Amino acid sequence: MTLKEKKYLLCITLSLLLLLFGLPRIEAAKQPDPLSSWTDGEVRSSIINFVERIATEGSPHFVPPEQRIAVLDNDGTLWSEKPVYFQLFFAIDRIQTLAPKHPEWKTKQPFKAVLENDIKALTASGEKGLLEIVMATHAGMTTAEFEQIVKKWISTAKHPRFKRLYIDLVYQPMLQLLSYLRANDFKTFIVSAGGIEFMRPWTEAVYSIPPEQVIGSSIKTKFEMRDGKPVLVRLPEMDFIDDKEGKPVGIHKFIGRRPIAAFGNSDGDLQMLQWTAAGDGIRFMLLIHHTDAKREWAYDRKSHIGRLDKALDEANARGWTVVDMKKDWKVIYPFEMK
Amino acid sequence: MTLKEKKYLLCITLSLLLLLFGLPRIEAAKQPDPLSSWTDGEVRSSIINFVERIATEGSPHFVPPEQRIAVLDNDGTLWSEKPVYFQLFFAIDRIQTLAPKHPEWKTKQPFKAVLENDIKALTASGEKGLLEIVMATHAGMTTAEFEQIVKKWISTAKHPRFKRLYIDLVYQPMLQLLSYLRANDFKTFIVSAGGIEFMRPWTEAVYSIPPEQVIGSSIKTKFEMRDGKPVLVRLPEMDFIDDKEGKPVGIHKFIGRRPIAAFGNSDGDLQMLQWTAAGDGIRFMLLIHHTDAKREWAYDRKSHIGRLDKALDEANARGWTVVDMKKDWKVIYPFEMK
Repeated sequence: MTLKEKKYLLCITLSLLLLLFGLPRIEAAKQPDPLSSWTDGEVRSSIINFVERIATEGSPHFVPPEQRIAVLDNDGTLWSEKPVYFQLFFAIDRIQTLAPKHPEWKTKQPFKAVLENDIKALTASGEKGLLEIVMATHAGMTTAEFEQIVKKWISTAKHPRFKRLYIDLVYQPMLQLLSYLRANDFKTFIVSAGGIEFMRPWTEAVYSIPPEQVIGSSIKTKFEMRDGKPVLVRLPEMDFIDDKEGKPVGIHKFIGRRPIAAFGNSDGDLQMLQWTAAGDGIRFMLLIHHTDAKREWAYDRKSHIGRLDKALDEANARGWTVVDMKKDWKVIYPFEMK
Repeated sequence: MTLKEKKYLLCITLSLLLLLFGLPRIEAAKQPDPLSSWTDGEVRSSIINFVERIATEGSPHFVPPEQRIAVLDNDGTLWSEKPVYFQLFFAIDRIQTLAPKHPEWKTKQPFKAVLENDIKALTASGEKGLLEIVMATHAGMTTAEFEQIVKKWISTAKHPRFKRLYIDLVYQPMLQLLSYLRANDFKTFIVSAGGIEFMRPWTEAVYSIPPEQVIGSSIKTKFEMRDGKPVLVRLPEMDFIDDKEGKPVGIHKFIGRRPIAAFGNSDGDLQMLQWTAAGDGIRFMLLIHHTDAKREWAYDRKSHIGRLDKALDEANARGWTVVDMKKDWKVIYPFEMK
């Protein structure tokens, strides 16, 4: 064989090999560390060990892709929740916007408290007061109108401490975790006590989680014809509260199968983790412990918002993974990296 | 350049071209007609035209994959619904199974009617009677127990006319349509008045539609700890009725965005089709008209089950696609092809 013939043969062989094996390998080799914002250590390893065991064909713990369901809380798990749930800031802003049309709010609690920025009176109005605020601000319009209101707020309103958009306060390590799970064929679902229609307008852009994979609390809607066009009108009536015991109920209602991995940060997530843990085969349960007062907030057993008490005891007793935010996360927010 | 040098160059060029364009084309050429059980004609063309327009990049009607949501009714659209909804056969079988534990049913309507096979008395018990039967047969156990009951029934019970499993009575042309839609990056959802937990145990195997893409009517469930293990108990209380005006409500609740294609067969699907049609851009609405008394059943405006009256008028007035089952479907059931 001449040199050129050899070259020719080599070229054909290489092309075939490239076709068969090359491209996927080049893809794999190119990938950077998918969890680079997680400190090397037990927590990071526990995530990787679980994912590798369930995703490796032939492993005794292999789980078929269609059963790789992961559920994640939102407030305090995917983005911050302090000084109050961000949806409450939204409701307060709505009260202020709508106030000119409601002169009676000047003298009526809990609206008076909101308008006068009187946190003490607002807190005193309790759950009943909160529900009144939600109904006054979240109902009475069509679903399309509400979506526009949320989209406008989320792209303009700023957080009081960081002076940044609320969607800038998502956790970089959790964004990486979401991508890592999806790269391993997980379907990622949000399961939040927050309003389902408060989240859906932006979760796809921010978390790459489409609306049909967002589960949350909801109010009722009603189908109506207006000028020959169908609309859905938001009614001032609760439909479903997706918190505590409601989380497994919501998971069963919306997903219809048990997750194999669950991520939360408070006692409101305990039942979701218990429900996930109770399935057959290996499971992964993770709690985020907010321990970083400097970069984010530090709170747990005594916090009014995001209380982590019973769930922390159960996690410790059962060996669930607990993230020490200060130690386990190299960065908190994406903007720290710019 | 020598001949061998030319060959060498040609080889490299061809390899590159093969890498860039060759493989997808070879794939495409291998595919058989994806809608081979649909008769050539207007109905078949309307489906293909719609899908090609929304799926072709650069087309003025192009829709990004994540927005390609298709919703399909189940009873009478994906499988038969005669002489009664198959779920009613399930409930009747359950009543007969449970009867030894309920001696009072022998003298109490509507249970007496079921046990005596008295269709007239059963019909006379109306919606209230039906609801009683559903609650007596669908509630009172855990969700895991109910799933096992459904799985057993669906894999053993036979349809009175065809003496075949109920899941053998799915429509072959619709199975092809589902595959064709998914091959074009549609996410296919069932939106049925039937029980969500009656469908989910078998839709993945039969339609390749996973539980999280099944929307239906539901009863409430409650989270409980039993011997330290969490369970969800099915309560005798309606949670949601996914029919008529309820279908757009269910679509919005579960999917959170408007479908671009909707498929139904009765007045119960009208609002779902209206809701789909009211979105921006081109849309596809299809009704199946049951016209084949010989191979399946023929019924429309006066049928008690699967009545097609107002929706047929609206489809004709608005130019929605109407399937004439007798003419447009070469085969009805998959078993006809064996």
